[in-house]
Amino acid sequence: MPTILGQNQYGKAENRVVRITRDGDTHHIKDLNVSVALSGDMDDVHYSGSNANVLPTDTTKNTVYAFAKEYGIESAEQFGIHLARWFVNSQEPIHRARIRIEEYAWERIPTSDSNSKFIGSDEVKHSFVRKGQETRVTQVTYDGSRWEVVSGLKDLVVMNSTNSEFWGYVKDKYTTLQEAYDRILATQVSGRWRFNWTDDEQRMPNWERSYEATRRHMLEAFAETYSLSLQQTLYQMGSRIINHRSEIDEVRFSLPNKHHFLVDLEPFGLKNDNEVYFAADRPYGLIEATILRDGADARIPVDLTNL
Amino acid sequence: MPTILGQNQYGKAENRVVRITRDGDTHHIKDLNVSVALSGDMDDVHYSGSNANVLPTDTTKNTVYAFAKEYGIESAEQFGIHLARWFVNSQEPIHRARIRIEEYAWERIPTSDSNSKFIGSDEVKHSFVRKGQETRVTQVTYDGSRWEVVSGLKDLVVMNSTNSEFWGYVKDKYTTLQEAYDRILATQVSGRWRFNWTDDEQRMPNWERSYEATRRHMLEAFAETYSLSLQQTLYQMGSRIINHRSEIDEVRFSLPNKHHFLVDLEPFGLKNDNEVYFAADRPYGLIEATILRDGADARIPVDLTNL
Amino acid sequence: MPTILGQNQYGKAENRVVRITRDGDTHHIKDLNVSVALSGDMDDVHYSGSNANVLPTDTTKNTVYAFAKEYGIESAEQFGIHLARWFVNSQEPIHRARIRIEEYAWERIPTSDSNSKFIGSDEVKHSFVRKGQETRVTQVTYDGSRWEVVSGLKDLVVMNSTNSEFWGYVKDKYTTLQEAYDRILATQVSGRWRFNWTDDEQRMPNWERSYEATRRHMLEAFAETYSLSLQQTLYQMGSRIINHRSEIDEVRFSLPNKHHFLVDLEPFGLKNDNEVYFAADRPYGLIEATILRDGADARIPVDLTNL
Amino acid sequence: MPTILGQNQYGKAENRVVRITRDGDTHHIKDLNVSVALSGDMDDVHYSGSNANVLPTDTTKNTVYAFAKEYGIESAEQFGIHLARWFVNSQEPIHRARIRIEEYAWERIPTSDSNSKFIGSDEVKHSFVRKGQETRVTQVTYDGSRWEVVSGLKDLVVMNSTNSEFWGYVKDKYTTLQEAYDRILATQVSGRWRFNWTDDEQRMPNWERSYEATRRHMLEAFAETYSLSLQQTLYQMGSRIINHRSEIDEVRFSLPNKHHFLVDLEPFGLKNDNEVYFAADRPYGLIEATILRDGADARIPVDLTNL
Repeated sequence: MPTILGQNQYGKAENRVVRITRDGDTHHIKDLNVSVALSGDMDDVHYSGSNANVLPTDTTKNTVYAFAKEYGIESAEQFGIHLARWFVNSQEPIHRARIRIEEYAWERIPTSDSNSKFIGSDEVKHSFVRKGQETRVTQVTYDGSRWEVVSGLKDLVVMNSTNSEFWGYVKDKYTTLQEAYDRILATQVSGRWRFNWTDDEQRMPNWERSYEATRRHMLEAFAETYSLSLQQTLYQMGSRIINHRSEIDEVRFSLPNKHHFLVDLEPFGLKNDNEVYFAADRPYGLIEATILRDGADARIPVDLTNL
Repeated sequence: MPTILGQNQYGKAENRVVRITRDGDTHHIKDLNVSVALSGDMDDVHYSGSNANVLPTDTTKNTVYAFAKEYGIESAEQFGIHLARWFVNSQEPIHRARIRIEEYAWERIPTSDSNSKFIGSDEVKHSFVRKGQETRVTQVTYDGSRWEVVSGLKDLVVMNSTNSEFWGYVKDKYTTLQEAYDRILATQVSGRWRFNWTDDEQRMPNWERSYEATRRHMLEAFAETYSLSLQQTLYQMGSRIINHRSEIDEVRFSLPNKHHFLVDLEPFGLKNDNEVYFAADRPYGLIEATILRDGADARIPVDLTNL
Repeated sequence: MPTILGQNQYGKAENRVVRITRDGDTHHIKDLNVSVALSGDMDDVHYSGSNANVLPTDTTKNTVYAFAKEYGIESAEQFGIHLARWFVNSQEPIHRARIRIEEYAWERIPTSDSNSKFIGSDEVKHSFVRKGQETRVTQVTYDGSRWEVVSGLKDLVVMNSTNSEFWGYVKDKYTTLQEAYDRILATQVSGRWRFNWTDDEQRMPNWERSYEATRRHMLEAFAETYSLSLQQTLYQMGSRIINHRSEIDEVRFSLPNKHHFLVDLEPFGLKNDNEVYFAADRPYGLIEATILRDGADARIPVDLTNL
Repeated sequence: MPTILGQNQYGKAENRVVRITRDGDTHHIKDLNVSVALSGDMDDVHYSGSNANVLPTDTTKNTVYAFAKEYGIESAEQFGIHLARWFVNSQEPIHRARIRIEEYAWERIPTSDSNSKFIGSDEVKHSFVRKGQETRVTQVTYDGSRWEVVSGLKDLVVMNSTNSEFWGYVKDKYTTLQEAYDRILATQVSGRWRFNWTDDEQRMPNWERSYEATRRHMLEAFAETYSLSLQQTLYQMGSRIINHRSEIDEVRFSLPNKHHFLVDLEPFGLKNDNEVYFAADRPYGLIEATILRDGADARIPVDLTNL
């Protein structure tokens, strides 16, 4: 046989699970999209089609729903840890489990000051509107001894309407761009950060608190950096996180430069003093980089993939 | 010639315009997607290709950007009114203009309490994050004398985790559904509401205030209705708007019933007491209806289209 | 009650049904996405939540699958007719049914000339690849006596790389466009055509043959028209259909002008002799029109909606 | 400085270039989406914002369009090779260039047998319809000495309506799946294959011929494999390619198991003899694996990313 099997994995992807928790009349919601990928002794199923080592993907789906009941969903990370541990520990042929989770945030619907029979009661504490901003993501990997948790977000769109310049760059025979001394800087943030928690003996991070703080530092760095290049802003966002969050050793961003071009209004006798912009779709600059705590390994892949 | 020309229109669609307004160091942003559709004496261009009556779609694009400078963007509705009036009044062959606008909301990025040289200053009042919840929409139509303004929103996802039942329905030979006495009710709201402002002589509504109030009434009605059917909830949402907003005569909703199915955990020896749900994609129930102020005409089309 | 109920409808949308038919070892496939919308005596369910007249959307879904077995799927149109007739005739409160269907085409996978144990047999006549070109659509409406069938397609992308001009248009103060004497004309066709079959007493069209012929006439008209405007091309496409297909009385197209801009290569010392183009996304011209057989009513709505 | 910069790259993504070539009246079209990613001495731009080593992303865009004129587009791979070589060789700070390209296929519009003034002429050899099946992709990487070319495709949907089974799998406490002895097997193929051409001294593959043959072998293996698991089918698809195409050393597939569930029609007194299926969206099984020529390195990343 001149061909051999390389890296392989399988599982059920995109299990949409919603978990409602009741605290009296006050309901809480966790809304996840969970993808399971398992690997191990899987040569036979590829070579001969023997499923003797294969836990069906349908079973991995059932496990997601059963665990939502058995363990609840404290956080996406904690939920992923329960699942990854189970698959590796309960199935001898499974040597490695990777759980990817998307989380959609919800907020409560404010109730009316009048016109409602519910006033003064807590009966509408079961009504939610999807926040709709970024999607929070995490990936938990376990091989029976070592944990790797990489969390992050995608589709968070941010803009600075000033304090951004771009000049002093290389000019070759194909360069036509004019230098800019006051431009809009906008991007749709895709970021991932890797935790240095790897071992059940270590104290586990508070995943929810870590997310909120990391997101805040990242946004503040974006807002507060006077930018000479999107690369500089990206590096500030990443190093701000590393410097403030001791539980995180590595950050990677993929930042499309969402170009906002100043529209030329001179043909119409109008002056455009950084007021009117065309928001372009394609092409876009794409700036990607990893920022590491000194001494840490780089483990987040070059391409940030959707979960 | 056995064929004749029926309704026709043309224009430039999806002009993405971002308008920054400076109030000292504090910046304000309006972010729109503007589509122009014009109609009038257009037989020749269809029959022979003569463009003698055709203002190019490229010109309608230029007009959008020029007007963003000349008039600013107070509201999507007001901006649409400026544009529609211009096309009909300035071009003899144009008898009717329809301007459709999507608006994306932004909020300010909160700044850090420490670690920032910007503290106590207003220098970061130029940093924004896209809100990412619903998309606000409007459609302004003008024929030289009469205005029609239909505003609304799309992609606002809401959920009640209880206070919803479904029973007492018709059962035929293809019915297998079990009655439900406590279910999740979730939908992705697409709504449009028509204003009774039609004439320059009338006092124009405050478009921004109207939107905020209408959206609030709609959400409150969703949250506060104990629901026996999604149709009942829809009607409450619409009539709440009509009853509270005298400027609105007609509302139409298209509400997909985003099914959340209770997962059967009994095979695993677990009881699912309205805790764990599978959020399904397709198929979905689709409930659509118009609610009218008594005596008003129904003018919003059956199918709510994206702009 | 100052508010009243207007047009309303409900049903299960996007029922994905795949029907395999076996002709010996040769399999045939029909792949549909079926949406049901019913209307009738539905005041109570909106006003009070009483479901006494409501056939559940879940039942409409079951009916789609049961009918795929009972009647098979000869064509999307014929399948829609079976469904619409059933809902109106079997349920007293239902006065009108509208069935919308998307159809995805598949073609057979050619088999190898060698290296296969299947050579000379018909055993691989069960292997398909999705064609992936246009999506075929139809909408069947029935009110108990009159039928309306509107079929069509969407997402068919076509291009003429020459034989298109655009000049002689109106120039106002916002016009900057240069006239073009040889440009690319490209569009993503969305078209709908209405059949004049309305009555069970009339001879029903051959839906499959009609679709193939109509699509061919439309494509030929696009290819063979020397175009002075996209409106002219659109009219040729529609009138070609009306002139050749006696079963069709009305056609409507929505044609985005997918701009291909000639790239200015002069800064690099290069001449661009209609060779290198930038394919733009947004904005785009949007040209929409109805073409009617003389004397026919216009019944297709202005906005062509997805099913 | 406690943080350091890791892997980083930048460039202009999604440059949409259409190249028309004229062979008398017969036109040929190449339709690409080209993304450039450059890396090298880029510490300063991240640390201080100095752009002294930065060729603007706008320039990389210009280069794409200029090269489409200067070199033409013989194949996506060859075009990527021209671009990658240029960036690395012409810019001292650039040490590595990665060019990703999507290609959209077009076919000619057949012309009418009658009703056309163009009959017998070649004047309509400029009319095209987008094929709309798979998207062809390639990625060319160059570091000044070594080439790596990984080509492939995405979004090719295939189905076998029989000759697929699934049984004999592991059953744990969460397993409820019934064994299947005749099921539909359908997937949306995403595949990548790596060429063993790495050096300008080697003879370059014929990229166009290689793609057609590889795609054909892959489809044949899918159609001709009697499948006991999707993993087995995947392995057959990959090894068929390696065995027939000496220029390819590594193949990776990501195959979602697009579940087609047999609908239970028994409640309606109907027997479903593998005739009526529900095509599900989410969740789906996801099967991923690499197949290698014996002795070859595995270089294609685990996650197949869109370009």
